[in-house]
Amino acid sequence: MPKNPAGEKDQALRELLRLPQGERIDLAGYDAGATPGAPDGKEAALADAARTGRRLAGLQERLWAAGTAGDRRRVLLVLQGMDTSGKGGTVKHVIGQLNPAGCRITAFKTPTEEERRHDFLWRVRRALPAQGEIGIFDRSHYEDVLIARVRHLARPAEIGSRYGLINDFERSLAEDGVTLVKCFLHLSPEEQKRRLLRRLDRPDKHWKFDPGDIEERALWPAYQEAYELALERCAAPYAPWYLVPADRKWYRNWAITRLLVEHLRELDPRYPDAGFDVAECRERLRKQT
Amino acid sequence: MPKNPAGEKDQALRELLRLPQGERIDLAGYDAGATPGAPDGKEAALADAARTGRRLAGLQERLWAAGTAGDRRRVLLVLQGMDTSGKGGTVKHVIGQLNPAGCRITAFKTPTEEERRHDFLWRVRRALPAQGEIGIFDRSHYEDVLIARVRHLARPAEIGSRYGLINDFERSLAEDGVTLVKCFLHLSPEEQKRRLLRRLDRPDKHWKFDPGDIEERALWPAYQEAYELALERCAAPYAPWYLVPADRKWYRNWAITRLLVEHLRELDPRYPDAGFDVAECRERLRKQT
Repeated sequence: MPKNPAGEKDQALRELLRLPQGERIDLAGYDAGATPGAPDGKEAALADAARTGRRLAGLQERLWAAGTAGDRRRVLLVLQGMDTSGKGGTVKHVIGQLNPAGCRITAFKTPTEEERRHDFLWRVRRALPAQGEIGIFDRSHYEDVLIARVRHLARPAEIGSRYGLINDFERSLAEDGVTLVKCFLHLSPEEQKRRLLRRLDRPDKHWKFDPGDIEERALWPAYQEAYELALERCAAPYAPWYLVPADRKWYRNWAITRLLVEHLRELDPRYPDAGFDVAECRERLRKQT
Repeated sequence: MPKNPAGEKDQALRELLRLPQGERIDLAGYDAGATPGAPDGKEAALADAARTGRRLAGLQERLWAAGTAGDRRRVLLVLQGMDTSGKGGTVKHVIGQLNPAGCRITAFKTPTEEERRHDFLWRVRRALPAQGEIGIFDRSHYEDVLIARVRHLARPAEIGSRYGLINDFERSLAEDGVTLVKCFLHLSPEEQKRRLLRRLDRPDKHWKFDPGDIEERALWPAYQEAYELALERCAAPYAPWYLVPADRKWYRNWAITRLLVEHLRELDPRYPDAGFDVAECRERLRKQT
C-alpha cells in the first residue's frame, strides 16, 4: 500500500484501508506489519496521533453538543481481531483520549444464559450508542459468525443466515444515523505468539492470559477463513470494513484515531444555536445576587 | 484548613475533606475558594495531579485485574453539586485519566416515565459498577432529597423517609464490597454566576446553558439547606461525604484524583496469581507454529 507522507487529505486513510466489497478476501495478501498512510517513523506517528487525538476530542464534544439539541447522529466503532490483536489496547489508548462521558463501551464475552435465550443481535441492540455518543464494541455480533463458525456453536444453516441478518441490521443502523466504523485488527501469527509469550513472562500480565488462547491459536487457519467470509459478505457502502495492520501498536492507534477523525469530520457536527434569548438571560442573571 | 505541603501521607486529604458525622453542617462556614492540602500554587498542583493520575490509572488496572479473578471489590464515585460546580468537568478531566473500559459512568437526569414507576433507587441500582469497575455517578440518588425537596416533587413524609433508605442502601453496598467516595462540589454563588455568564458569552457553550438554571439559582438558599440536611443525615463511616471546594477547577481535579488514589491504595488490589501452569503453557505455545 502506498505511503502518504502528510496524511492530510481527509479521505486518505479510509480509502487506503477500506476492504474491497463483493470480492473474495485473501488475508494472506495483507502485511500485518505494514504502516499504510502513516507519517515516516514511529516518533512522527506518535506525535501526529496525539494531535489527531485532540482533534478527535474536539469533534466528539461537537457531536455530543449536537445530540443535546436533537441531532440523532452517532458513531459506532466495531473492533474485531484475534486474541492480542489490540482491541483492549485501542479502547485504552484511542478511546482514552476522549471524554469518557460520551463513550458507550461494551466488551462482548461468551453470551450469558439470558443472552442465549434471545436472538444473537439482542444484546448488541442494547449496547448501541444513544444520540451524541460514540459507541465502542470490543468484539461484537461478528463473533456469531466467527467463533460460532469455527467452534460449531450453531447449525451451519443458522450461521449462514446470520450474514444477511447482520447486513439488514447494519443498514437499519446506518439509516437511523449511525456511522459504522468497522475495524479488523490484522495480526500475524508470529506477532501473536510473541505477545502471548510476553504475557506468560510477566506475572503482572498473567491475568490477561487464558490457557484456552493456545487452543484457539491452533485454529488460526479456520479463524482466518471465517474472517475472510465475514469481511466479504458483510461489507457495504454504508458499513465498510477497514483492515488495520496491527503488528505495530503505534500504527494501530494512529490509524484508528485517524479513521475516527475522518468519519467525524465528514459528519461535521455543529454546536447548536441557543434555543433561548441570550441577552435576556444575561440580564436576568446579572440582576440576581 | 491547614496546608499540607507534600501531600504524601496517604490518608491526609481524606481527613482534611471528610465532613463531620452526626453534626449539623453549615455550608457558609466552608470557603469554596480554599485549597486544603494542595501543593503550593496551581502549576505545582497540575503537575502533582498528572503524576497522581498515572498512579490512579495503575491502581485501576490492578482493581480490574483482581476483578477478573473474582475479587468483588469496586469503587463508586458520587458527584453532587450545584449547576456548573464541575461534575461533568470532573468526569472529563479526572476520570478521563483512566482506562474507559473499566469505568461505568452514569449521568442521572430527570427521571423517565419508566423510572418514575419504580422506587427512587431502582435506576441507581442498575447503574452500579460491576466487580473490578469504578462507577461514576454524575448526580445520583441524592437528587431525590435535593431537587425533590426544594421543588416539592414528593410528599414531605416520603422525602423524609428517603434519608434512611439511602443509608440502608449505601450500607448494603459497602457490605458487598463497594467503596463509596461521595464528593460534594462546594461552589460559591459568585463563582456560579461568573460561570453561567461565561457560558452565555460563548456560542460554543450555549448548549450547556438552560434558562431553567436561572430559576434554580434563585433557589440557592433552599438548595444549600437541602444539601446540609443530606450531608448531615447520610454520612456514615462506611459512606462519608467529602466537601471539595470547587471554585478553582485545578483544585477540584487535584483533590478528587487524590481522594480516589487514597481509597484505592487502601484497597490495595493485587494482580492475581496465574490460575494455570505457566511453564507448561509456554512449552505448548513454543511448539506451535
